[in-house]
Amino acid sequence: MQTELSNALGVEHAVFGFTPFPAVAAAITRAGGFGVLGAVRYTAPGELARDLDWMQEHTDGLPYGLDVVMPAKKVEAPQGHPLSEADVEAMIPQEHRAYVAALLDTYDVPPLAPGEASGWRITGWMEQVARTQLDVAFDYPIKLLANALGSPPADVVERAHRHGVRVAALAGSPRHALHHKAAGIDVVVAQGYEAGGHTGEIATMVLTPEVVAAVDPLPVLAAGGIGTGEQIAAGLALGAQGVWLGSIWLTTEEADLHSRRLTAKLLAAGPGDTVRSRALTGKPARQLRTAWTDAWDDPDGPGTLPMPLQGLLVAEANSRIQRHEVEPLLGTPVGQIVGRMTSERSVQAVFDDLTRGFERAIDRINRIAGRA
Amino acid sequence: MQTELSNALGVEHAVFGFTPFPAVAAAITRAGGFGVLGAVRYTAPGELARDLDWMQEHTDGLPYGLDVVMPAKKVEAPQGHPLSEADVEAMIPQEHRAYVAALLDTYDVPPLAPGEASGWRITGWMEQVARTQLDVAFDYPIKLLANALGSPPADVVERAHRHGVRVAALAGSPRHALHHKAAGIDVVVAQGYEAGGHTGEIATMVLTPEVVAAVDPLPVLAAGGIGTGEQIAAGLALGAQGVWLGSIWLTTEEADLHSRRLTAKLLAAGPGDTVRSRALTGKPARQLRTAWTDAWDDPDGPGTLPMPLQGLLVAEANSRIQRHEVEPLLGTPVGQIVGRMTSERSVQAVFDDLTRGFERAIDRINRIAGRA
Repeated sequence: MQTELSNALGVEHAVFGFTPFPAVAAAITRAGGFGVLGAVRYTAPGELARDLDWMQEHTDGLPYGLDVVMPAKKVEAPQGHPLSEADVEAMIPQEHRAYVAALLDTYDVPPLAPGEASGWRITGWMEQVARTQLDVAFDYPIKLLANALGSPPADVVERAHRHGVRVAALAGSPRHALHHKAAGIDVVVAQGYEAGGHTGEIATMVLTPEVVAAVDPLPVLAAGGIGTGEQIAAGLALGAQGVWLGSIWLTTEEADLHSRRLTAKLLAAGPGDTVRSRALTGKPARQLRTAWTDAWDDPDGPGTLPMPLQGLLVAEANSRIQRHEVEPLLGTPVGQIVGRMTSERSVQAVFDDLTRGFERAIDRINRIAGRA
Repeated sequence: MQTELSNALGVEHAVFGFTPFPAVAAAITRAGGFGVLGAVRYTAPGELARDLDWMQEHTDGLPYGLDVVMPAKKVEAPQGHPLSEADVEAMIPQEHRAYVAALLDTYDVPPLAPGEASGWRITGWMEQVARTQLDVAFDYPIKLLANALGSPPADVVERAHRHGVRVAALAGSPRHALHHKAAGIDVVVAQGYEAGGHTGEIATMVLTPEVVAAVDPLPVLAAGGIGTGEQIAAGLALGAQGVWLGSIWLTTEEADLHSRRLTAKLLAAGPGDTVRSRALTGKPARQLRTAWTDAWDDPDGPGTLPMPLQGLLVAEANSRIQRHEVEPLLGTPVGQIVGRMTSERSVQAVFDDLTRGFERAIDRINRIAGRA
């Protein structure tokens, strides 16, 4: 499936695959799609360089991209300097710390081993860290730089354009999308309510054409609720120049969730087993519904803190839950298509299913339209 | 656009239009779609017969259907007899009555005129009333009987089948859909999160193929987020045998909302201006977000009552708000496609747009698929 955008990027299929795993991103690109590596977990520039080296060796010269997190709103400490992790720590109420401790206690979550670090650091969500990621990234032939939260700063857009890199940004509403257009963004990812991760209230079926109309003639990718070839056909019928898939790759053989129990939970989950909750970061993000999300969404609990406080508050707890695979609390961001993720397969096998399902959908709709 | 179902029903286009207005339902049928008249507001059998007579005269022998509300769960009074309006009245807490009174006072909502009845009666939501509607309906050549809440009782399904009438039921999850299949329903309407009226949490993009897979080989209609030809193409690409549209007809010239201000509000609203709230009936239903829905969703308020209590609690208040067009409180059930409803046009003009947009979408997706 080819659109103006996929042709401009030099990919065979207008299927964009977002993933935190280099092996998955490379396999998506090799399969004929456009792999986008999520960079949020790289806090050390050397690690990102190592994984981009690996990507470069395993993508046969085919195009791929990078996704960073630069929150649109800069958070400053009361003293007026950029917020440090220590500043954020100091802003967390004792009541919330006690609630985390009680939850971990209730579910008998063991501590991390001595010297074992929490895998998730707030620093990955801070602009200064994203900027050091960019210093690394522009040394590689990335073709797309995506930003997950808001429009990136003007100098970052300029720098990308100087390197011949298109800039994409996620939008949950036509208003967000217009903001991106004004900021000089090249591609808008319209991310619907049903998507995994941070989402707004508007579903993909409605959001996609709204965003297409709002930012015309900029190309739009449809995201949220897309995990089959039929859903790809639907997203493209809505006016998108491509589709953006994240959840579907989580249960591929190349993905490394570090937890067989979590993979099993994803494979068993139905479309109603996710929830849009502030439990993870302080902003609404769709994820598996667990005893952990229930506890944070409980009206009798203390509720969640705003970003970035909530993320720091729960970072170590989440690492402990993941490390020890504590079943009732174990979760991950994932969209409503989790119901269709029922077996572990290679990225190539998933991709083949996508293109075959797309062709079937085109056959069927042509019959309905009386064109077959 | 033709599918097995549309051919079996004898309609030109697999577009099902739900509306409470006979003039709209008849115009949808005349335009080549399948008009479905909502019966919930008919509490007197004579009124339904009068409007079905009118439908019969204005549909040129073309097919149409009727939508009734038979809640799946029968509510019984503590004494074990079917619940009467008086029983329900007695179950409403004084705190909630006071909250309604205070809201009406805050917004200076005038009373109804002496002798003027509340337009909305709980009786329309009760099985015995729906049964008297059916006694009338089966005297007319309706081709489809839809039920908005749960599977209709077995004897109703049998009676419909004896009359050669297909039975449809709305489903917000694959589980609901399987229940309908077991109850002998012929057509499942998969109603997504973005739809107006009662909806579940799963968006149309995900729900449609889930329900198609669950009830195969029963035909499925995609509902929720569909108001353009591109969205029709998307719904059909997801495996549906037709689409079910409700909101889009509210701003047609044939619709009679009894309030210019409400029409103006609908025309001005964006896709983010609806909310899924229990304010109207006690079950989550998508509607325009207003000061009224905000008040019921306010964590500092008393919250809503379960169905059918909430509906009875707010019935007279809603009639007063509508009758006097009290701007901040004025609302209606409507889906997220309200953002695309930007001008008042005839049903025929809307329908022509739908079929033209559908053809455009098919052209475009065939180009993307390399088949043009």
